[in-house]
Amino acid sequence: MAGTASIRLNFPGKLIGRKLEKQNGDILHVASCSSGKTPSLSDQRRLSLVSASAQIDVGISGTVNGKEVNGKHVAEEAVQVGKLGNENAADAALVTSLHGRFVESKFVYRQIFVIRSYEIGPDKTATMETLMNFLQETALNHVTSSGIGGNGFGTTREMSIRKLIWVVTRIQLQVQRYSSWGDVIEVDTWVDAAGKNGMRRDWVIRDHHTKEIITKATSTWVIMNRETRKLCKIPEEVRQEVVPFYLNRSSISTEQTDSEKIDKLTDDTAERIRSGLAPRWNDMDANQHVNNVKYIGWILESVPIKVLEDCNMTSMTLEYRRECRQSNLLESLTSPTARVIGDSNNNSINRKPDLQYTHMLRLQGDKKEVVRARTEWNLKP
Amino acid sequence: MAGTASIRLNFPGKLIGRKLEKQNGDILHVASCSSGKTPSLSDQRRLSLVSASAQIDVGISGTVNGKEVNGKHVAEEAVQVGKLGNENAADAALVTSLHGRFVESKFVYRQIFVIRSYEIGPDKTATMETLMNFLQETALNHVTSSGIGGNGFGTTREMSIRKLIWVVTRIQLQVQRYSSWGDVIEVDTWVDAAGKNGMRRDWVIRDHHTKEIITKATSTWVIMNRETRKLCKIPEEVRQEVVPFYLNRSSISTEQTDSEKIDKLTDDTAERIRSGLAPRWNDMDANQHVNNVKYIGWILESVPIKVLEDCNMTSMTLEYRRECRQSNLLESLTSPTARVIGDSNNNSINRKPDLQYTHMLRLQGDKKEVVRARTEWNLKP
Repeated sequence: MAGTASIRLNFPGKLIGRKLEKQNGDILHVASCSSGKTPSLSDQRRLSLVSASAQIDVGISGTVNGKEVNGKHVAEEAVQVGKLGNENAADAALVTSLHGRFVESKFVYRQIFVIRSYEIGPDKTATMETLMNFLQETALNHVTSSGIGGNGFGTTREMSIRKLIWVVTRIQLQVQRYSSWGDVIEVDTWVDAAGKNGMRRDWVIRDHHTKEIITKATSTWVIMNRETRKLCKIPEEVRQEVVPFYLNRSSISTEQTDSEKIDKLTDDTAERIRSGLAPRWNDMDANQHVNNVKYIGWILESVPIKVLEDCNMTSMTLEYRRECRQSNLLESLTSPTARVIGDSNNNSINRKPDLQYTHMLRLQGDKKEVVRARTEWNLKP
Repeated sequence: MAGTASIRLNFPGKLIGRKLEKQNGDILHVASCSSGKTPSLSDQRRLSLVSASAQIDVGISGTVNGKEVNGKHVAEEAVQVGKLGNENAADAALVTSLHGRFVESKFVYRQIFVIRSYEIGPDKTATMETLMNFLQETALNHVTSSGIGGNGFGTTREMSIRKLIWVVTRIQLQVQRYSSWGDVIEVDTWVDAAGKNGMRRDWVIRDHHTKEIITKATSTWVIMNRETRKLCKIPEEVRQEVVPFYLNRSSISTEQTDSEKIDKLTDDTAERIRSGLAPRWNDMDANQHVNNVKYIGWILESVPIKVLEDCNMTSMTLEYRRECRQSNLLESLTSPTARVIGDSNNNSINRKPDLQYTHMLRLQGDKKEVVRARTEWNLKP
């Protein structure tokens, strides 16, 4: 890949807002990793975790991940730390649980997080970047734990064989409340169909103790060839892998889903432009391009500092349009969206946001779009 | 505080390499938080965690944190998830353990981490920034769990009363091996005296399953007035809080401790200079200044990309000299250190590094130093 290669995502718009009927009667099918194939690295890790906890434990009654069709994943079992209950047993239970586990008959994957000191911003609450990281982490662990994971970053086995990767085209987050350092939260995630060739992934983040919903998110994914960087249809073999996990449930109701077009900003329409934003070495991820989550930081660079200081971002919609590599210089554009401020016809159900902005990240060289975004903000109480 | 205020740390050099004798016969003193004072937020959280796990558990035999002098912290007890062993019980045990716990008679604090997808770099291993984040997190949880924590970021109660904060002056990391995504590691940390007015904090990171040591680190801390930003002596009341936790043990042996002066780089001596590095809003931490860990990213910005791609950083020493605020523009300077390459008299015990660099971050405006650093690198296998 050349350093400045970029891709054009042609059909995110068509994928949004469509849903297939839940395929009733589907049984859970866990693809076998032991039928003559060498277990992947992640399988080996999982097996070693299982054996580590089995040594100190008489309570694991399930079967080992992927060993049996329709078998229950071991992480779904409550790990019982019995009479041996010493610190090693507690550690083993911890390690098993740290990866997350299935709930609701394996349709939902759940992982618990404690907000860490380096995951909070200047106002001592978890940043939007932190929330996005949690979403990414649970999505990847969901795939790995489902037994269908391939070698790549969240790919299935049938995708790995075909050199296919998932690409996110749109993601929307609604934040009810930001968590503080030390708070314990749980992230639920599941997938569903999105049109013929897309997958929808939803999340709900709750306060672990009160179960209060604090964040909802939904996203649309399509499949891309890792080498040609072109989008393609979901191969039937891949569909067979993921369909058994589809759950017809939406974290964000249809009325609250932001499926509206995000306007393109230009030099003329942007109120603020920050140029010369350079990806750092640390912004690259395992796919050798700028990680999706990092874009948030650059979007915020063209938001007035008073807004960052005095407001909470309550909603964000990102529309990804091109990959960005380390050699690319970026420009961040922001404008307030006149339509919503003072307009009573916006489709926000509960409270009208105090501020709404449109954003764009583009390559500084040829002005090609990387991300469009819309954010909503409320004054801090 | 003015946006460009900066501080001068005058005595890091004097603090390095000194150690006090372990104060034998000290009994563990856990300061009470219930003697007429309202428990702090963190106390309340901890108490709520304790009660959450107690509800499902008959096995907690210790006393609640801070309720009793010389009492054992509940996190030190093995949390026994008994016959009830369902998913809620597992979750409760998980939540208790997620914060870490004391080991070795409360002299060492241990926390387990799983390397997450967003904590790895382009080569799919944990980044140096991730390791530094783990060090910070365990240090802060250590203070909170010890029962002596105040309101601030790692401060003790007696420090909070006096508006004092900890400031790190020097930190050294030795990385034997970088962990991969999904690996389980455990971080041990403890403190000791460093001269009359400093505290040393050490860490050892191990592979949780094999117990192989994969990273060692040591750091020196002094006390600063939060308002005047001036360094001060450790008040006797603060010393009384921390001394019971002092452990006369070094993670890095004296011979391997990098206590040598780090040369100052100038426009003339620096081989590479990267200017115009701008802190982002997300780089600020709860202390309203650039988080210590973020400096690593800027240091790497002046390191040749071939080195970043082809080598592993095996050692890093950072000497912090000034605070940096969001309004500051930074310059990153790097030069190879001729002294070590091909020099057999360097004090590296095992293997001579393939490359050694000297670095400096300075304010672009007045060229004042923010950080000096030394890094060592080995070619990837």
